[in-house]
Amino acid sequence: MSKEYQKKFQPRVSVEEVEEGSSLSPKFNQDGLIPCVTSDSKTNEVLMVGYMNAEALTKTIENAEAYYYSRSRQKVWHKGSTSGLVQTVKEIRIDDDQDSIWLSVEVGGTGASCHVGYKSCFYRSIPLKNKVSQNLELKWEEKEKLFDPIEVYGDAPNPTKL
Amino acid sequence: MSKEYQKKFQPRVSVEEVEEGSSLSPKFNQDGLIPCVTSDSKTNEVLMVGYMNAEALTKTIENAEAYYYSRSRQKVWHKGSTSGLVQTVKEIRIDDDQDSIWLSVEVGGTGASCHVGYKSCFYRSIPLKNKVSQNLELKWEEKEKLFDPIEVYGDAPNPTKL
Repeated sequence: MSKEYQKKFQPRVSVEEVEEGSSLSPKFNQDGLIPCVTSDSKTNEVLMVGYMNAEALTKTIENAEAYYYSRSRQKVWHKGSTSGLVQTVKEIRIDDDQDSIWLSVEVGGTGASCHVGYKSCFYRSIPLKNKVSQNLELKWEEKEKLFDPIEVYGDAPNPTKL
Repeated sequence: MSKEYQKKFQPRVSVEEVEEGSSLSPKFNQDGLIPCVTSDSKTNEVLMVGYMNAEALTKTIENAEAYYYSRSRQKVWHKGSTSGLVQTVKEIRIDDDQDSIWLSVEVGGTGASCHVGYKSCFYRSIPLKNKVSQNLELKWEEKEKLFDPIEVYGDAPNPTKL
């Protein structure tokens, strides 16, 4: 299925064309995925990092709503289909060697993008200029969850894996 | 070498601790790497997506300057060591399942982060709400390069691979 979608993109013929040309030639990794950074279109705050396969990338471009590939559920996932927290894509960019995507989005509902309930998945910071050891403690940068994950997701399996 | 660095972090013992605890327990993929989004600390604009191994992450935290793992050169790379475009880290965050890093940085020199010469690696956008086909054309979002890559990198191998 994803092979069929991959044929919609230009093949990667030269480094020059990939970097300086106008052909869309995304590079999918050995699992057929490309990483995607998603940020808030108003503040540019980074909300999450996800992955897309060729099908998810195609649907995102065509519908201007974010689709990802869920590695834990192994399927394409329309963000917000369970939670209502749909991400409307305002702009989509690709990087120099075309192996990463950047989505700038407006989030529906409570405005959260994190399955734990926070606005951004990056709700904790790492203290800088400290010697790294097992004693290092993360610091909370978001104070409150925007939704209760149990209410929204019920007993659906948690996508976080050890 | 990287195994030794990995021991500096807490082991991943439970989903609850990874998501809601204050232990730093990054998840490195099968290649020993974790993806890292880097944005401009003033505007939050996404500058690049790179990868870190345990050593690069440790050095970034301890020195508050960005270190990455270069997949093409297969070694830890102090960003700016050739170009002078050092990234001073103002904040570093980790996401819910601790498999992605976000660096907020101030860039030295010309302020560019892209080896092609642009400020951001994401200098091209993909037109939205268009049927995806090989005719789709990328659009330039940055007008000018901030440096000449031939002057800065000479004949060093291009990190972009087909």
